[in-house]
Amino acid sequence: MSDSRPIGVFDSGIGGLTVVKALRDLLPNENIFYLGDTARVPYGPKSPETVQRYAVELAGILTRKNAKALVVACNTVSSVALPLLTKKFSMPVIGVIEPGARAALQATRNRHIGVIGTRATIRSGAYEKTLRAADNNVRVSSRACPLLVPLIEEGLLNDDVTDRMIMRYLEPMLADGIDTLVLGCTHYPLLTDAISRMLKRQVMLVDSAQNCARAVEETLDQQSLRATPPSRGELHVALTDAADNFLNVARDALQLSFGEIELQPLP
Amino acid sequence: MSDSRPIGVFDSGIGGLTVVKALRDLLPNENIFYLGDTARVPYGPKSPETVQRYAVELAGILTRKNAKALVVACNTVSSVALPLLTKKFSMPVIGVIEPGARAALQATRNRHIGVIGTRATIRSGAYEKTLRAADNNVRVSSRACPLLVPLIEEGLLNDDVTDRMIMRYLEPMLADGIDTLVLGCTHYPLLTDAISRMLKRQVMLVDSAQNCARAVEETLDQQSLRATPPSRGELHVALTDAADNFLNVARDALQLSFGEIELQPLP
Repeated sequence: MSDSRPIGVFDSGIGGLTVVKALRDLLPNENIFYLGDTARVPYGPKSPETVQRYAVELAGILTRKNAKALVVACNTVSSVALPLLTKKFSMPVIGVIEPGARAALQATRNRHIGVIGTRATIRSGAYEKTLRAADNNVRVSSRACPLLVPLIEEGLLNDDVTDRMIMRYLEPMLADGIDTLVLGCTHYPLLTDAISRMLKRQVMLVDSAQNCARAVEETLDQQSLRATPPSRGELHVALTDAADNFLNVARDALQLSFGEIELQPLP
Repeated sequence: MSDSRPIGVFDSGIGGLTVVKALRDLLPNENIFYLGDTARVPYGPKSPETVQRYAVELAGILTRKNAKALVVACNTVSSVALPLLTKKFSMPVIGVIEPGARAALQATRNRHIGVIGTRATIRSGAYEKTLRAADNNVRVSSRACPLLVPLIEEGLLNDDVTDRMIMRYLEPMLADGIDTLVLGCTHYPLLTDAISRMLKRQVMLVDSAQNCARAVEETLDQQSLRATPPSRGELHVALTDAADNFLNVARDALQLSFGEIELQPLP
């Protein structure tokens, strides 16, 4: 039996579209309803309490859109609000931290993993805790990279200023000997090319968007929630404020197609 | 008679503290209540409707704090919400655009003025309209510089990456022949040193924070609202979310002193 209800995906803004892209590639039959809180983006610098309150509001909207599963396509929200969302909502809730951490543990050979993300994600220690819970011997070096999101949102995906900031952020971790780097922010897959270029293949990159999509597939399979052919999935995008420049940057870089943006008022 | 009610100053975040600094220097007897909407910062990428709604909420809070005047220490809000605020609130409302534009017209010799600001401020055309309304022959070149705010908030006030971005933004205007540059964002006075270094004194800088403070002084004088010695003004800072890193950057760079931050819940 095919379940055509949408997968509800939300993020503080537009960055979560990297997760949508990974979901579209992996699960082309699924309908996806994406909700980006552009009226209150970014969540990175905000307090855990505020982020939790916003997350519950967004998840509530997706529930009313009849979502069969909730995908938290935002590391900041995943790092501070996942237990709360799991408690408050009855459908499966999938974040980006756990899948990324699992993939990093599979990738590392020297058990030294680097994690980059927003200040809120890094401060939460969420990746560190998840990695350590699975493997007590793993060493984790983390670094907040607060300027990468604005650089990405300006579309400076291949630019010398961005390259400089990447090197400034990564050099200490590389010197420290990481062999695996978790891109712990859903914006960062848009910098995969730039970061790979800087790393010169010394380090394995773990893309939390792709790993999140795989976790969604697993969950839908386990709970018999898949939409099956001939259903052809559609992507619907709603934002809490008018779309900004970054929507075009992301749409072009990810080659995503969707119709008109819906303006979703906040409660 | 001395009026010790506070001047209410608000901004989308911490940037408006540059206006507070200018007010403290110019009007040391005045009490100031500063309200920064850190829970929803930045306003720059948000739609005019959303910014207007937020501005009315913040002004309402300051009214309940018994403010004798409202200072909109934010170019984005000044550019889209000043008429609405003036209509809705009975006390004087002073923004940053009009004072900055007036100072630029006094400074320019070749009648070619540059304006830099957030995307929202530049898109609004507010400086251009104000400048043109006063002088039909003035030429205005404007440029949105969306990366300067994040660079400032990271404390990269004297840094080669910031210098590069400044040059990238300003070079076309300099080539075009501006002789005066309006810093049309309350964050930008923190880059005065860096921008002056880049401009090599070819161009007059107009600091909208200082000019706003002068306009506040004028208004208070006209309406007999001044606090007078021996009253020693105090600065009270309230934020809608926990303070972030930038508060320390601004406090240090501006050498402002204030007590504990109050957390101001939104309505």
